[in-house]
Amino acid sequence: MSESNPPLLPTNAIAEKEALNATTERWFEYPVKAHPHHTDYAGIVWHGSYLAWMEEARVECLRSIGMDFEEWVKLGCDLPVVELSVRYHRALKMGMTAIVKTRMLEAAGVRMHWDYQIQSPDSQELYVTARVTLVAVDREKGKILRKLPPSVEAALVKLSQ
Amino acid sequence: MSESNPPLLPTNAIAEKEALNATTERWFEYPVKAHPHHTDYAGIVWHGSYLAWMEEARVECLRSIGMDFEEWVKLGCDLPVVELSVRYHRALKMGMTAIVKTRMLEAAGVRMHWDYQIQSPDSQELYVTARVTLVAVDREKGKILRKLPPSVEAALVKLSQ
Amino acid sequence: MSESNPPLLPTNAIAEKEALNATTERWFEYPVKAHPHHTDYAGIVWHGSYLAWMEEARVECLRSIGMDFEEWVKLGCDLPVVELSVRYHRALKMGMTAIVKTRMLEAAGVRMHWDYQIQSPDSQELYVTARVTLVAVDREKGKILRKLPPSVEAALVKLSQ
Amino acid sequence: MSESNPPLLPTNAIAEKEALNATTERWFEYPVKAHPHHTDYAGIVWHGSYLAWMEEARVECLRSIGMDFEEWVKLGCDLPVVELSVRYHRALKMGMTAIVKTRMLEAAGVRMHWDYQIQSPDSQELYVTARVTLVAVDREKGKILRKLPPSVEAALVKLSQ
Repeated sequence: MSESNPPLLPTNAIAEKEALNATTERWFEYPVKAHPHHTDYAGIVWHGSYLAWMEEARVECLRSIGMDFEEWVKLGCDLPVVELSVRYHRALKMGMTAIVKTRMLEAAGVRMHWDYQIQSPDSQELYVTARVTLVAVDREKGKILRKLPPSVEAALVKLSQ
Repeated sequence: MSESNPPLLPTNAIAEKEALNATTERWFEYPVKAHPHHTDYAGIVWHGSYLAWMEEARVECLRSIGMDFEEWVKLGCDLPVVELSVRYHRALKMGMTAIVKTRMLEAAGVRMHWDYQIQSPDSQELYVTARVTLVAVDREKGKILRKLPPSVEAALVKLSQ
Repeated sequence: MSESNPPLLPTNAIAEKEALNATTERWFEYPVKAHPHHTDYAGIVWHGSYLAWMEEARVECLRSIGMDFEEWVKLGCDLPVVELSVRYHRALKMGMTAIVKTRMLEAAGVRMHWDYQIQSPDSQELYVTARVTLVAVDREKGKILRKLPPSVEAALVKLSQ
Repeated sequence: MSESNPPLLPTNAIAEKEALNATTERWFEYPVKAHPHHTDYAGIVWHGSYLAWMEEARVECLRSIGMDFEEWVKLGCDLPVVELSVRYHRALKMGMTAIVKTRMLEAAGVRMHWDYQIQSPDSQELYVTARVTLVAVDREKGKILRKLPPSVEAALVKLSQ
């Protein structure tokens, strides 16, 4: 596998290893698979396809603590992405599976930070690391909320513990 | 427009203004339009759709200096994205047009950094700022090139001047 | 070109030729280009990417006769696709350009049929033929409209003449 | 559910019902969920997103009988889509789940026909019906294969029984 799927970057293996081990027990895990429509001419997952997977993992993580995203939207709240950064360490090829690991860091007011590590199922390969920031918005007014609704805040506290 | 398209973030207007004015003459401009398939449930462009636009602008910028990306790929070289960061300042709604402005910063060895500003056609609204880093890879070996091919380097020098 | 871009199907060249010549003067033409994000592992445009291009051509064709699709949506009308059929005659490779030709056939009540031919810029190669059917829907009620709004009907008559 | 998710088309309920019951035991079932990136401005799944799901179901169906698609591609064979037709009966909204049911009809030479029904998990709602035709191609020569490789044919016979 390692020869057919070479690293894209000379990475600091030790730092990555530590990051991987740090708080694994708190990560939400979402399995994905690289299908033809995810790939580009190079036979690997197109760099934008990961954003869709990260969004799916985020939505399912929220659902796992009782927050249905579509309900939230119906109630007039939205959670647009306002910032993201992604590092692509190693390419995922067509047919390969991976685990999108995500966790929400402590919410700062109405901003939520999510960390990501996309790894091989055996955790030996690191494909992508990322951070995504969302902000809670009033859909009708199109304005950032001053504070999260109490019910949401309670659910999120549960997630970040 | 401003009321129907509110800012997503309390941004530092002065800093942005300076950034916009700095080196506008060197930016490559690529017009885009928000079509239905770019949007999500919120009626605005889905955050991942911008990556496709940024890729298109990059490919066309390279073409404008005589580098056809598909030729480069045929010659055995690839340019995967290894890092990106995006800030979403203001949402682009269905039917709106925008200009993707991009420029390549000085290449550091085989790594290329591209800056982006996605603005309204009149430059009065800033939707997205981003930076994308690519690295030149030998497609067959799957390894990062030690140095750019001379022909490529010559073309890129032209771009960063 | 022909050897690097072989036909996918043994097609009936004569029938195609006739179809191409039939009513070319009434077609709306929308140029597209195959960028990396449109391709899949085979280096050709992924079959689903054409649907996005066809939607863009449709929206721009409507705009050319004075109907802004986003305005229509704001007014409470939607035009979902209810049926489509596509034949892929020849693959479009990364870097290639094409023209999406489309025309609306006479609307049957609230259903609109659109024909498509995606060709090379010199009209010598036929990549895709397709038909897409839309239906006018009341967004709030989620029901099919009994008849098109008069203003819409007037605009569409102009298009199908 | 039925009032919040109205039918798009006045369909022939009896014919559909028969189709649903016909050979359900032979269908391969692939569960999907409508995430934000699948939706468009109308809050429902964009019509092109279904093609990605249908491709995923096809690949996983082949895998279930021992054919890894990526292996097939490595061996020099490809299976491009050459024809498809889709009927959208009812919209799938953000957050909803569905089952993509697919089966391969008897292969006619090197052409394979796949039927699809995308239904609610309880089989009471029919969202999409479709047929997709693939053809086996020699990747290097870019030509349609005269006949399927024996190993592939044996696997496919298993599937269509």
